[in-house]
Amino acid sequence: MDSSGKNSPWASRQDRQAERENKREAVLRTAAILFNEKGFHATSLDDVAERLNITKPTVYYYVKSKDEILFECVRIGLQRLEQASTQALQNGGDTRANLIAVMGEYVQIVTTDFGMCLIRVGEDPLTLGSRRKLRLLKSRIDLRFRALIAQGIEEGVLKPCDPKFAAFTVAGALSWIARWYDPNGPLKAQQIADQCVDLLMNGLSK
Amino acid sequence: MDSSGKNSPWASRQDRQAERENKREAVLRTAAILFNEKGFHATSLDDVAERLNITKPTVYYYVKSKDEILFECVRIGLQRLEQASTQALQNGGDTRANLIAVMGEYVQIVTTDFGMCLIRVGEDPLTLGSRRKLRLLKSRIDLRFRALIAQGIEEGVLKPCDPKFAAFTVAGALSWIARWYDPNGPLKAQQIADQCVDLLMNGLSK
Repeated sequence: MDSSGKNSPWASRQDRQAERENKREAVLRTAAILFNEKGFHATSLDDVAERLNITKPTVYYYVKSKDEILFECVRIGLQRLEQASTQALQNGGDTRANLIAVMGEYVQIVTTDFGMCLIRVGEDPLTLGSRRKLRLLKSRIDLRFRALIAQGIEEGVLKPCDPKFAAFTVAGALSWIARWYDPNGPLKAQQIADQCVDLLMNGLSK
Repeated sequence: MDSSGKNSPWASRQDRQAERENKREAVLRTAAILFNEKGFHATSLDDVAERLNITKPTVYYYVKSKDEILFECVRIGLQRLEQASTQALQNGGDTRANLIAVMGEYVQIVTTDFGMCLIRVGEDPLTLGSRRKLRLLKSRIDLRFRALIAQGIEEGVLKPCDPKFAAFTVAGALSWIARWYDPNGPLKAQQIADQCVDLLMNGLSK
């Protein structure tokens, strides 16, 4: 074995950390899938362990509780939505195109395992403190959407309306997809997004 | 006391039944308000009893468990939506006007205590059997909306689109209102409905 430790049969600290992160994410994702399938309440950490072919103590090595798992799943979902909406606002260029693009990304995110968990289970089972932290993230996403819509109205590419209501309507319609979306179904998230976005931009009425 | 029992100091069976129904609804409604405020998990039957100035055994006289309460709250919310959507479909006359009217009613319903509970808590905490029963009601509401939209497309008053997606988009946008609606806030449900329905009918784009 040389002094750099390159030939050590033990993994480097960096590798070990990356592996731990990987495994923790597998625990979170598997739990999210089970929450989405059976509901948060009906899912036990035993179910999570079984699905991963590990023991419950091993699950506890990565997370403290079912509550911590849910908090993390919802946080990851919200963080992705926040990143997408912040990006859309900073993009510059065509506001209408940016809005349409971020709506499509929103659908992509809420149809992932973490995104579905965010909408299907949400923060109701969590403590008030955890819920407050998540609400902060939510309100940031909302403000980005409002700003983007306000910008579009100012530029004359969107109809004059209250950006607050418009942002809520858009978020509601797009989030709802996560309630009925079937990852194993025939429809891809992109196809659903296209139709839903078209309806929100152009309306039902002829 | 005459033979009809009119002057009996005990209430008639009918009156007793009506009073029991009244009190049971008060238990359900109070629980719904608490679930909406604090979350289903954070609410105990002690909280419900305290809010009603009664004891927990008295609560148990009207309902078996927190689960039964939630099932009933969600069922009542869904039943009202189902009645409104069935009515809209049977109304005859102007399909576009019927659709707009039922969208307004939908907002009225999801901003009641039971309606908010339906959307904010939903059926996740319930058993698979209970969730199946509620899903049946949900799918009926969905089918009514699809039928109404399909009718509007056929009559040429709505844009050609897939009624399934359109129904989901409408339900999502309108249901979402229950997530942020504040019964003590300055905005009445009607004002919110008007803006949201206008957006769904006419779109964001100029």
